[in-house]
Amino acid sequence: MIVPVVAISGSSGSGKTTLLVKVVAELVKRGWRVGTVKHDAHGFEIDRAGKDSWRHKLAGASTVALSSPERLAVIMDTPKEWPPERIISTLLTDVDVAVCEGFKTSSLPKIEVVRKANGKSPVCKRDSSLLAYATDMKIRGKIQSFGLDDARKIADFIEERIIKTHHAPGVSLIADGEVVELKPFIENLIRDGIVGMVRSLKGCFEAAEIEIRIKKK
Amino acid sequence: MIVPVVAISGSSGSGKTTLLVKVVAELVKRGWRVGTVKHDAHGFEIDRAGKDSWRHKLAGASTVALSSPERLAVIMDTPKEWPPERIISTLLTDVDVAVCEGFKTSSLPKIEVVRKANGKSPVCKRDSSLLAYATDMKIRGKIQSFGLDDARKIADFIEERIIKTHHAPGVSLIADGEVVELKPFIENLIRDGIVGMVRSLKGCFEAAEIEIRIKKK
Repeated sequence: MIVPVVAISGSSGSGKTTLLVKVVAELVKRGWRVGTVKHDAHGFEIDRAGKDSWRHKLAGASTVALSSPERLAVIMDTPKEWPPERIISTLLTDVDVAVCEGFKTSSLPKIEVVRKANGKSPVCKRDSSLLAYATDMKIRGKIQSFGLDDARKIADFIEERIIKTHHAPGVSLIADGEVVELKPFIENLIRDGIVGMVRSLKGCFEAAEIEIRIKKK
Repeated sequence: MIVPVVAISGSSGSGKTTLLVKVVAELVKRGWRVGTVKHDAHGFEIDRAGKDSWRHKLAGASTVALSSPERLAVIMDTPKEWPPERIISTLLTDVDVAVCEGFKTSSLPKIEVVRKANGKSPVCKRDSSLLAYATDMKIRGKIQSFGLDDARKIADFIEERIIKTHHAPGVSLIADGEVVELKPFIENLIRDGIVGMVRSLKGCFEAAEIEIRIKKK
């Protein structure tokens, strides 16, 4: 991944948003630029009826972008759901870390929230992507646990295990909407090839970030 | 540009949204996938207080993405306003044509709306980017005029002058947030170089669209 990423996962009603909000606030307080991705299986309505952007959407636009000096908003219809890796690679370009909410069946590195009062067992698969629990219960096994309110300790953990271990520079490659996994050797090859190809173009010599899109049709 | 683009421009109160909505509906009816970009110099509030995504933003996230099976929404703080070319290249990837509202001082191809009752003179510079007026007035000069309600004729014009003259394949290159203009020779060189470089990777051989991002820092 081009940006370090962690997901706060768990069953419905476990308190994912509550924990995420505390952890994000803590990371922001420490000076990190944080992006978030929330997965909502049931869809959502984000725009306000009557606003101009809503009129664009009602007229049949499949993508509507709203731009102001300090903010940019986009709503798009997606014929196929974007995997979180694509959302992060394409849209969370200007952050130090991506914190996702949900995605319990993904292979993203995860912290699972398990709340006793919610009456549900842990739902995340216990593989190497499950890094820790945030819980008010005792959960058997060797996976590290934090308290439900341990936002500071969880932020420490994300800094140590996710942000600081993330290797830069990064390359992301998306083909027809699917993120293509790159071995380090290939990643370097692509990076050096492209940087070499464009370095003599205006503005590219010292650019910290380069984005290229090719549409063949 | 990677996608054909036209802007509906004009002074405040001229009726840009009203015309755009009719033109977009007409283009959609004809089977085109349309994306829109609205410029709002005064900022906007798009999210709803109390929703989870709003809580993410309040916690300090600089970018918040909301993903559902059929829709994707993103709100991001932009340290520097994105030029429309960047918005289109990065975000309007899945459309046949981009219709922008505003951007009267840009070099995008433009149709200017001039409404008598609005009491204002035309505001767009009369250079080669000003393609036509939509107006209920007589405007001197050689620039083509449509009526304010001529959505069908304006859609014809956009099809002929914008969509059908657009050459594909396209390459967009963005360096540190700025769109780099590419001469056709360089565009071909970059396209062929990258397509050649990635073609043996999984999913890339016949991909219609390839997106690469490199983060050096």
